[in-house]
Amino acid sequence: MNQIKIAQFGLGPIGVESLKLVASKPWATIVGAVDIDPDKIGKSLAEITGIEKLADCKIYPTFEHLWEQHQPQVVLHTAGSKAKEAIDQMAPMAKLGVSVASTCEELLYPSHRAPAEAKLIDDICCRHDARIVGTGVNPGFVMDVMPVFLTGVCRSVKRIHSERVVNASTRRMPLQKKIGSGITPDEFRRMFQEGKLGHAGFQESVALIAHCMGWKLDEITETCEPMVADHDIKTDFFEVSKGLACGLHQRCEGKIKGESKIELDLKMYLDAEDPKDTVHIEGDPPLSMQILGGVEGDRATVAALVNAVPRLLRAPAGLRLMTELPVPSWTNNE
Amino acid sequence: MNQIKIAQFGLGPIGVESLKLVASKPWATIVGAVDIDPDKIGKSLAEITGIEKLADCKIYPTFEHLWEQHQPQVVLHTAGSKAKEAIDQMAPMAKLGVSVASTCEELLYPSHRAPAEAKLIDDICCRHDARIVGTGVNPGFVMDVMPVFLTGVCRSVKRIHSERVVNASTRRMPLQKKIGSGITPDEFRRMFQEGKLGHAGFQESVALIAHCMGWKLDEITETCEPMVADHDIKTDFFEVSKGLACGLHQRCEGKIKGESKIELDLKMYLDAEDPKDTVHIEGDPPLSMQILGGVEGDRATVAALVNAVPRLLRAPAGLRLMTELPVPSWTNNE
Repeated sequence: MNQIKIAQFGLGPIGVESLKLVASKPWATIVGAVDIDPDKIGKSLAEITGIEKLADCKIYPTFEHLWEQHQPQVVLHTAGSKAKEAIDQMAPMAKLGVSVASTCEELLYPSHRAPAEAKLIDDICCRHDARIVGTGVNPGFVMDVMPVFLTGVCRSVKRIHSERVVNASTRRMPLQKKIGSGITPDEFRRMFQEGKLGHAGFQESVALIAHCMGWKLDEITETCEPMVADHDIKTDFFEVSKGLACGLHQRCEGKIKGESKIELDLKMYLDAEDPKDTVHIEGDPPLSMQILGGVEGDRATVAALVNAVPRLLRAPAGLRLMTELPVPSWTNNE
Repeated sequence: MNQIKIAQFGLGPIGVESLKLVASKPWATIVGAVDIDPDKIGKSLAEITGIEKLADCKIYPTFEHLWEQHQPQVVLHTAGSKAKEAIDQMAPMAKLGVSVASTCEELLYPSHRAPAEAKLIDDICCRHDARIVGTGVNPGFVMDVMPVFLTGVCRSVKRIHSERVVNASTRRMPLQKKIGSGITPDEFRRMFQEGKLGHAGFQESVALIAHCMGWKLDEITETCEPMVADHDIKTDFFEVSKGLACGLHQRCEGKIKGESKIELDLKMYLDAEDPKDTVHIEGDPPLSMQILGGVEGDRATVAALVNAVPRLLRAPAGLRLMTELPVPSWTNNE
């Protein structure tokens, strides 16, 4: 297999996990990483990951600094949820013909919130033979790409419903915080309104499904209510008293003439019982799918990102959607 | 959307259903069909399908006869299970730059049984900008492409297990016959050995999964035992007395050094209880998926075939695998 030269952009928890996983792939050669944290800049990736063979790979303050030393073919981008900011960061990469796989949630369907920027970066990609895709587990798989995948055996589709229940007690600290653990229900609602809390990229999941189904939605609605602890809860990171928020119940719908065509329902909370992923396709044939226990978010997100790389390079140049890439597949570690 | 000119090759029950479905797609213009049945040749497709707008579409005895009158961009091929025969039929199409989506079971992974022919037709496709793919529900989706799809969020995969239970009582007559309904268990075993009975393309499902996982299998084993009626059964087409075969239990495994890496287990029988499709991925994270009631084969096979057409045309030229096409998706009927 041809070696793919890879750089990591962003060394938060997901970025470090991404590096560790891609280091195990026989098709990948890691050349370095980029992070803005002064404590990390200049260090070696062996120090950050514990993987000795990365001793010669350094952390640079900007992509330009990294490019002076190394010319990666692909960047793994794990730095933020906003499509516009991500596209700003990716433009210099695309101009050099570097492709990017990203966990940026809004990049799942970038033209939803950043139509002008999406068009611009798509043009840059096409001119310079680069490819960009936003991926992950959710958004990126369980509540959007998987329902689309299932419709591949449908003669007709009337409505799509997907429900995900995540037990946040087993997840990393930033996620437990992001879902509002330990704050009051009023504070929860205020913070969601201010965009400081909640699951990012939910509207993009609805927009991606609608795009694939050929449905022109009239509106996308989104609500988020706190899940309230009915007992005192203690995790590795939080103590939540009964009556305080212990997670979120977020819903996003896509409608045509007032009729709901796509309904996504997400509960992420501490001590959640019966975690699962379900998809119901109202169509011909109808389909009712369930993943028992659900897909574990943190570990699987990094897998989705790394597994996307070889497929991304086989797709046509441009700003791509996950559904435009070949069928998702594990890439062997041997 | 650009119109795609389509011809149907093979007018058995699946071919006719395929025509009816593709006639409902706004991107498709049907130009005619090919069948060897003297009773059908010369008739209009309106007579065969009951769809009035197909009155001017005729049935031709060969693809060459059809090509003289019309130049389809895509052929829907529903004529047989054997890769070598299908490739023979498709070679003249590919030489004219015509792409083919086919329900031929062995075409799911053609190099398993026809490596030389597969190489040859791939070359023809590449030279003439044509694409060929084998698709369907099983093989083509539930026991092969769907397990591969799920591994897209896995960091590692050790083993894949898939089980499908089909209640054949609700299926078309040829399927009830193909699974051995009403014959003795001894006759069942003899007919399976002679290749006259059983589920086609099972080894191809295993081979496709192994290919995607990067596993070099040492052997693929396949067994087929009769399901024996424990009560008298009556369907619209068959009466089966207690003690006679009422279906099949077919298993196919892919092994490396004696260790089973892929296990596919299929039961199709009359009056089957609890029809379902399940996939278990032994990996990180482990995944356990179930489709309640299972995916209905006949209706869904035609959907998989028709839905594949726009994606096939976006794939690189060549003899393609389903997993090399963009993510499966319904194509709108409006």
